[in-house]
Amino acid sequence: MHELEVKVPAAQPGSYRVAIGTGLLPGLWPQIKAAFGHRRPFVVTDANVVSAGHLDTLLGGRPAPQFVIDPPGEGSKNITTAVAIVEAMEKAYLGRDTLVVALGGGTVGDMAGFAAAIFKRGVPVVQIPTTTLAQADSAIGGKTGVDSSVSKNAFGAFWHPAAVYIDVAAVQTLDERQYRSGLVESVKHAMIADADYFEFIEQQMDALLARRTDVLETLARFNCTIKGRVIEADPDERNQRRMLNYGHTIGHAVESASNYRLLHGEAIAIGIIAAGRIEVEMGLSEPGRLERVTALLERLDAPTKLSADMDDKQLIDLLRHDKKAVDQWPRFVLLDRLGHVHCPDGQYAIDVGRSIVEKVLGAMANDR
Amino acid sequence: MHELEVKVPAAQPGSYRVAIGTGLLPGLWPQIKAAFGHRRPFVVTDANVVSAGHLDTLLGGRPAPQFVIDPPGEGSKNITTAVAIVEAMEKAYLGRDTLVVALGGGTVGDMAGFAAAIFKRGVPVVQIPTTTLAQADSAIGGKTGVDSSVSKNAFGAFWHPAAVYIDVAAVQTLDERQYRSGLVESVKHAMIADADYFEFIEQQMDALLARRTDVLETLARFNCTIKGRVIEADPDERNQRRMLNYGHTIGHAVESASNYRLLHGEAIAIGIIAAGRIEVEMGLSEPGRLERVTALLERLDAPTKLSADMDDKQLIDLLRHDKKAVDQWPRFVLLDRLGHVHCPDGQYAIDVGRSIVEKVLGAMANDR
Repeated sequence: MHELEVKVPAAQPGSYRVAIGTGLLPGLWPQIKAAFGHRRPFVVTDANVVSAGHLDTLLGGRPAPQFVIDPPGEGSKNITTAVAIVEAMEKAYLGRDTLVVALGGGTVGDMAGFAAAIFKRGVPVVQIPTTTLAQADSAIGGKTGVDSSVSKNAFGAFWHPAAVYIDVAAVQTLDERQYRSGLVESVKHAMIADADYFEFIEQQMDALLARRTDVLETLARFNCTIKGRVIEADPDERNQRRMLNYGHTIGHAVESASNYRLLHGEAIAIGIIAAGRIEVEMGLSEPGRLERVTALLERLDAPTKLSADMDDKQLIDLLRHDKKAVDQWPRFVLLDRLGHVHCPDGQYAIDVGRSIVEKVLGAMANDR
Repeated sequence: MHELEVKVPAAQPGSYRVAIGTGLLPGLWPQIKAAFGHRRPFVVTDANVVSAGHLDTLLGGRPAPQFVIDPPGEGSKNITTAVAIVEAMEKAYLGRDTLVVALGGGTVGDMAGFAAAIFKRGVPVVQIPTTTLAQADSAIGGKTGVDSSVSKNAFGAFWHPAAVYIDVAAVQTLDERQYRSGLVESVKHAMIADADYFEFIEQQMDALLARRTDVLETLARFNCTIKGRVIEADPDERNQRRMLNYGHTIGHAVESASNYRLLHGEAIAIGIIAAGRIEVEMGLSEPGRLERVTALLERLDAPTKLSADMDDKQLIDLLRHDKKAVDQWPRFVLLDRLGHVHCPDGQYAIDVGRSIVEKVLGAMANDR
């Protein structure tokens, strides 16, 4: 037998701009054309974004090939829609010089990013998030996930955006529940990385709920700085990036148990409280921290208790099937103080005994 | 407006082993288990490979979850099959610890590689090519392409294999036409990179046609060395990797014009002759080179003339729609001597006037 070795050289390091402002949308198309002039844009958006007028504002009457996801939302975040987006690009005679422009919330960003990743072995995508959730979280970081007929996020790719444009004015059109639940990811960022940011959210809550754009801009700067720093350190989620999963392990189980009646941010709020109770059990919580977090989430009208129909045994079972589970049990991200992830031996996601999680979920089930 | 920059660090450089031998298949499964022991294998193959007995030889009675592409061949190289492969992995309860094992020819390698690239944001794939074409070419290099209902290779990803195992004994079961046509890519490798290798093929042709394994092993070593070197220099096909496209620009048009009645290698043989005639027109050919190449391809029973039903005007039209065309005209890879690509100003794919190509294809149309 003979052996050769083929070396795969390191990809060039890259970077992308995140522009944050108020009222960017009307002037954005010429900016994108200037930045990616040799590329032909293809817009992916959804029916909600079109109704809210954002597509018209972006295009300003200019023609552009586009795909409008309809019905909007999680139900369309599947491989069938991804294939339809790629085939729409082909039918518009687009090739490797395509620039995918994602205008919308988390589903639009995921669908557009994944379609860009698999079209002709990959074309760049620009993210223009229009929801509090996407602006805080999903538009940055390059993770895409798409459901199959069998399970959630069966398909996906790491596909970093070529640029991100955050217009905080866009969130003015969200309904109150969407708006508030999307802010939970901002609370999460503060909790894992910056106690001053947490205090800022507490102090500016009235302005935030009034959707004051100056506060939203500051929020976006905090979010992007925190998430950007984590991604730079660990783009492929080998270790440190796991900290972004704070509240998500139990949160995902809650989201699934609710059959997606709970919005993502709402489920994560419950997951954050569960993580906080685990921290108390494990002696990782300073006095008053859980109460302070609970109070902040309640001001967002986010749920902090299990719903009446949610069974703690069912949640345990869902945790055993968590996609990151090893030997049928997931690891957990926990804090040792506000703004700082507990990281023994350099591990950001750690073992937590099943009995502790069962105790916490049992208590939460009794406590509603 | 505020701006941040998110840095995307360079991915770690990697490498993969290419093992070449005769009769590797029966002992390969334990080797793969040893090399990727913590991963759970999922085999992708096709009905031809199963009939030829290769799947049984690989597994040796061991159970393994698998997907058998049926019917085999180009007709199944589409997104519907890719989705079915991913859903089969899910139904086998596989997760991010999956190792996709591709056992078969070019279609199997593409389908398995693409499915691995998009399953759960990417899992590794091991390539075990069983055809002369896949052993010479497609199993190495990480390019995958999958057809949509609209066009060829609309979907795809660069996804480098984690290992390649070439058992030259596997090609014994190919029918004569598959066997011979797959050798055209070996001729191409010799032409673009190594005149000694070209001479080796000329001298060993009888042994090659008799499928002598020692000669096939040497061939595999030449092929993998040449292709590996090019990929190491330019993994994402920015420039140098284009040289692997020698004969493919007109070859792809011919393949398409034949409605895929011609096998890939057969179409590429015609493309190589067309490139040779362009070289003659442009004064890039030394005397006798085209005749020597023609003679070698004819010994492989590869076509060197346009088929009776092939219209040169149609080929020109297909070239205008080539996926790499810029302003509706592709660039061409040409040789300036046997074993060396003509590379003016460091460009491996160069402009060739449309009139020259029209003249060459017109002459080939008259010449059949």
